[in-house]
Amino acid sequence: MLHKQEEIDFSLGQNGCTDEELLSLVRHTIRRSVDTGHPHFYNQLYGGTDPYGLAGAWVSEACNTNQYTFEVAPTFSLAEHAVLQRALELFGFPNGDGIFAPGGSMSNMYGLVLARYRMYPDVKLDGLAGLPPLVVFTSEDAHYSTLKGAHWLGIGTRNVVKVKTDAAGCMDPKHLEQCIIKATREKKKPFAVVATAGTTVLGSFDPLNPLADICQKHGLWLHVDACWGGSLILSRKHASVLEGIDRVDSVSWNPHKMVGAPLQCSMFLVKHEGLLHRSNSASATYLFQQDKFYDVTYDSGDKSVQCGRKVDAYKLWLMWRKRGDEGLSRLVDNAVDCAQYFAKIISERPGFELVLPEFQCTNICFWFIPSSMRDQTRDEAWWDKLAKVAPLMKERMVLQGAVMLGYQPMAHRGMVNFFRMVTTCQPPPTRAQMDFVIEEIERLGDDL
Amino acid sequence: MLHKQEEIDFSLGQNGCTDEELLSLVRHTIRRSVDTGHPHFYNQLYGGTDPYGLAGAWVSEACNTNQYTFEVAPTFSLAEHAVLQRALELFGFPNGDGIFAPGGSMSNMYGLVLARYRMYPDVKLDGLAGLPPLVVFTSEDAHYSTLKGAHWLGIGTRNVVKVKTDAAGCMDPKHLEQCIIKATREKKKPFAVVATAGTTVLGSFDPLNPLADICQKHGLWLHVDACWGGSLILSRKHASVLEGIDRVDSVSWNPHKMVGAPLQCSMFLVKHEGLLHRSNSASATYLFQQDKFYDVTYDSGDKSVQCGRKVDAYKLWLMWRKRGDEGLSRLVDNAVDCAQYFAKIISERPGFELVLPEFQCTNICFWFIPSSMRDQTRDEAWWDKLAKVAPLMKERMVLQGAVMLGYQPMAHRGMVNFFRMVTTCQPPPTRAQMDFVIEEIERLGDDL
Ligand SMILES: Cc1ncc(COP(=O)(O)O)c(C=O)c1O
Ligand SMILES: Cc1ncc(COP(=O)(O)O)c(C=O)c1O
Repeated sequence: MLHKQEEIDFSLGQNGCTDEELLSLVRHTIRRSVDTGHPHFYNQLYGGTDPYGLAGAWVSEACNTNQYTFEVAPTFSLAEHAVLQRALELFGFPNGDGIFAPGGSMSNMYGLVLARYRMYPDVKLDGLAGLPPLVVFTSEDAHYSTLKGAHWLGIGTRNVVKVKTDAAGCMDPKHLEQCIIKATREKKKPFAVVATAGTTVLGSFDPLNPLADICQKHGLWLHVDACWGGSLILSRKHASVLEGIDRVDSVSWNPHKMVGAPLQCSMFLVKHEGLLHRSNSASATYLFQQDKFYDVTYDSGDKSVQCGRKVDAYKLWLMWRKRGDEGLSRLVDNAVDCAQYFAKIISERPGFELVLPEFQCTNICFWFIPSSMRDQTRDEAWWDKLAKVAPLMKERMVLQGAVMLGYQPMAHRGMVNFFRMVTTCQPPPTRAQMDFVIEEIERLGDDL
Repeated sequence: MLHKQEEIDFSLGQNGCTDEELLSLVRHTIRRSVDTGHPHFYNQLYGGTDPYGLAGAWVSEACNTNQYTFEVAPTFSLAEHAVLQRALELFGFPNGDGIFAPGGSMSNMYGLVLARYRMYPDVKLDGLAGLPPLVVFTSEDAHYSTLKGAHWLGIGTRNVVKVKTDAAGCMDPKHLEQCIIKATREKKKPFAVVATAGTTVLGSFDPLNPLADICQKHGLWLHVDACWGGSLILSRKHASVLEGIDRVDSVSWNPHKMVGAPLQCSMFLVKHEGLLHRSNSASATYLFQQDKFYDVTYDSGDKSVQCGRKVDAYKLWLMWRKRGDEGLSRLVDNAVDCAQYFAKIISERPGFELVLPEFQCTNICFWFIPSSMRDQTRDEAWWDKLAKVAPLMKERMVLQGAVMLGYQPMAHRGMVNFFRMVTTCQPPPTRAQMDFVIEEIERLGDDL
């Protein structure tokens, strides 16, 4: 890792440089970058890339085109269509529609925009002025993208109601209903629920069937942020954690997370045909000429809030074609298996304490308690001390360690800094690696 | 080009395939894709990629990381910082701030969001409910992204007021002021003007100094959509078309257009330090830990509406470092020179008719009038007939031609389909190529 910014001279100016100088800078860049493809990079919800995915990324980068029209992206439009179609089938919206977006935060914004548009189609023309405050409900464990989206979309972060989660980190449907009733009483207008399938930190899955019942009853759009946990739909063994997802209105799924498609690769899927285009189209005549000689239904660009749109589908298409559903299922199962193994080992190991006894995805959250702290009373001072352990261990990981994982506090649960171990499909983790990580954590933290 | 979707089997299913089958599919994909790097691809505002840019794209794809924190993107964070800094200096905001966004449409949305946030900081928390309708002004020749943005941001497309342009396609400052006064009288709240530097079709530059005067007087944010024409800032000879840009509040610039950075490469630049972070931050504790051991000011992620953010800066950094300001300037000058040469030749050639006598960027818009139509009276039937010439010629271009350029009507000027020829930096065009294009157009259209 690069520590001091002076180590590489990134300055730009009047004059260029030779190819040799440039090559040396590129070598330095690569060497001082974080090796996210390292088997022991567990720091984020992504890691190494699927090699077929990387090949696909390179091909589509070299072909440098925009995904907006069939005219300039005939092959990539068809590949995008094929991937979306397969994903729609898996999630249970065979007649739905979809689009690739530059990341899950944007995909989640698509969900909010469509939810709002379905309830108030005039919002496209007239904006929000004159409407009551619109309210969206999401869990207190949900990703912050709904907050960012609420600001951008003019809804306001105050109108993102945080629904309580149970001990397992799943949205409490009873509390959701209470929140809906309360917002309505306050003369606000509930319009959408954003459930999470695989929360960022704990990896919890909100109960989709009860949530779908409530949304149906109150006429609310149900969007599922499955950016992280959506990949479990690929698994024969574990897809059942997503039960009920065919009943929802829209889904976001990031194949750039668990399955290792190179960044960026995120899709937004919606059950209702035609809505994406009606909501987002602007019918620019310089781009979407209707007097073209080919079938313009493959011109997907006007469904998007973007104009130019990078080809993000082809790399996923390539991985998927190579491996089939079958091969992707095996990779996901292996990631889950390693996570389960990791959890089992540390649940029996002194010094490790699981945040959740049961877990649902490939996140395993735990505190590591150095030897010297193990037999002490857990008063406030003790927790304050423990809070500092993870950052110190993290510093050692980065400076001298062979593994890298993330940590965070969780204020709404009153929890101080804990680690989040997480497995992904690429490079495929092994049980032996899990053992190594556990030992490495002990090595780095035991003397603290 | 691919005509029938059956020609390549993009279907996905249960089983995978062999490497050989995959390779054959990839070869087909490449062969049937549109060769945007072909010297005679003039169809969009992008074309071939700068080879150094492509190398940079491949490196950053292989390093697969997220631009959000220095922790996982130390080198790329510094490269992004260096590119933004150089761009800020060029545009005249040395103390400003910036961020890469997934395309110009998103960059323009950043401008609208910051404009709104500066006027109504409470919008982040409270949303738009209770506020008067906010109004943004842009020219009738402006890109449609302001419309799409207005829908998403809850402003409403009706509240995008289209200001008239003069004969050269430039926003009329007098009409802008009338529109501002009218909106205020209607109890709406003007908050931003989106000027364009290099319009999509005609390539016109709005007069920034008069617009800045008006915005100052009325307290409005002035954003410049320089996605297309912003690259002229690199040119020693032609940067003056952007005069006054140092007076505006924010700028969008797409190096993936004229200068040939691979898609996607777009930046949003803002004069006011700190605003980007205040407006967009959500301070997620799992990602932006403040107890990290390094200088967290390089953690750029919380300035973004995105969470994960692909590395888009490095490819541009690599091109720029290789070529220097000097080298990029020469490439831009060459593109402008070829465009000027093209315009000069066709202005003297029978059958070609320029839409604008003067032009300001590298767009040259023209009608091609087949021999049989040249000496006829230009009544309505004649124009109807001419409207069909461009689509027919386009079909021939795609099916049997050696060049590809775009066409469009322009309803607000009462103009039927005309061609838009456009040069970019990559691959560097030549005058001989311009001659070839002219001859090819005659070959494809003269008998119509
Ligand atoms: C003037 C102008 N602004 C903005 C855009 C949108 O940029 P992007 O395609 O990157 O969203 C375009 C696209 O052609 C444009 O011409
Ligand atoms: C549950 C969840 N949703 C959405 C996102 C945002 O996805 P992206 O980083 O692609 O914007 C994340 C990112 O970690 C996430 O964990």
